[in-house]
Amino acid sequence: METPSLVEELRHFVAERDWRQFHDPKNLAMLLASEAGELLAEYRWVRSEKADEFSREPDARQRIVNEIGDVGIALLLLCDRTGIDLQTAMRDKLARNRQRYPVEHSTGRATRPVG
Amino acid sequence: METPSLVEELRHFVAERDWRQFHDPKNLAMLLASEAGELLAEYRWVRSEKADEFSREPDARQRIVNEIGDVGIALLLLCDRTGIDLQTAMRDKLARNRQRYPVEHSTGRATRPVG
Amino acid sequence: METPSLVEELRHFVAERDWRQFHDPKNLAMLLASEAGELLAEYRWVRSEKADEFSREPDARQRIVNEIGDVGIALLLLCDRTGIDLQTAMRDKLARNRQRYPVEHSTGRATRPVG
Amino acid sequence: METPSLVEELRHFVAERDWRQFHDPKNLAMLLASEAGELLAEYRWVRSEKADEFSREPDARQRIVNEIGDVGIALLLLCDRTGIDLQTAMRDKLARNRQRYPVEHSTGRATRPVG
Repeated sequence: METPSLVEELRHFVAERDWRQFHDPKNLAMLLASEAGELLAEYRWVRSEKADEFSREPDARQRIVNEIGDVGIALLLLCDRTGIDLQTAMRDKLARNRQRYPVEHSTGRATRPVG
Repeated sequence: METPSLVEELRHFVAERDWRQFHDPKNLAMLLASEAGELLAEYRWVRSEKADEFSREPDARQRIVNEIGDVGIALLLLCDRTGIDLQTAMRDKLARNRQRYPVEHSTGRATRPVG
Repeated sequence: METPSLVEELRHFVAERDWRQFHDPKNLAMLLASEAGELLAEYRWVRSEKADEFSREPDARQRIVNEIGDVGIALLLLCDRTGIDLQTAMRDKLARNRQRYPVEHSTGRATRPVG
Repeated sequence: METPSLVEELRHFVAERDWRQFHDPKNLAMLLASEAGELLAEYRWVRSEKADEFSREPDARQRIVNEIGDVGIALLLLCDRTGIDLQTAMRDKLARNRQRYPVEHSTGRATRPVG
């Protein structure tokens, strides 16, 4: 017998609480952005060059893992609701980024086109 | 011979462009939040009850898939940089959410504790 | 004798705590985005057509006022740090929006150009 | 005769385009967060210690002013729609922050309570 996938567990979690009614794609996009905002908040007073070290401090790390879990769950819920395959979306985007940022013009340059 | 995983492809993409220097966890949290903001922008004028239908319209769908790809990539980059296992983070968070929102107190209620 | 302006009070608040060192524009942009995310969280499970009513419920309203205060403060801190005049920035943007969304092409249309 | 206030100009801009129907508080909170995300994007690859300098570079500055204009407008629209007085909200929040971060416990410390 197979272990239920995480997506199946999420569906079950949502169904048990009758929360599907709240999980339209608009609301899930809001959930995702607000969780990304909480993750962002963890790093807002940390200097760039201290950010790796900060991410390893036990208390900070636990909060970061927690927020990353929230962001990931929101993303899976949105993909499941809209029928979008996350792996394909990421692979397609990576392929586009290879075109958009050719190695010869992008190497070591922080100033990339925004968006 | 195995196909390289998406994370390996991302590492290669970043290394080829010498972008690792920009990808500290603080900057990647900013990338993630700004990409989540772009996804959010797609839905900002869409009525809740139209959000599923909107997500299926070909042009909108292509933009949404594109933004979801960006969010997913940012999340993978952050997890890879910090050494956080995304699957574990999501499973742990789901387990916590089961405790936090017991079925008997949460069913069909939109007003859940914030955060 | 004049009342100190809000910006002067904010400067004093920051100086007293020796927080200016944390308030570079990058960090303040993060503060602003994370506070906007908290405000967003208030509305994430509210249906579009209930959002006005929800904003008047005493408990919700207090939280919304609170988050709006945070967003406004973050915006003022960023403008003060960068020497950007907020009123001028808003007036200039409104002038550009008038050009960008001519009345005859924009009336009653939700689908405006993104960005 | 008085100059119309910026809020009055915004109301006129929205009314002329019949956009009031899209400007419920939920959608305006989304607008605000997505504009804050665009502002954030400007700073995502900038090192903390370069962020002041970056904010003065003419091209970057124009984009930042532009995004700050968008954020400010979104905030005014939301305050106007909900009848929340922005100045009062900020002053009340500053008063609460004075309590929450007493000078003697907060001086020079980046690690403040999150939220």
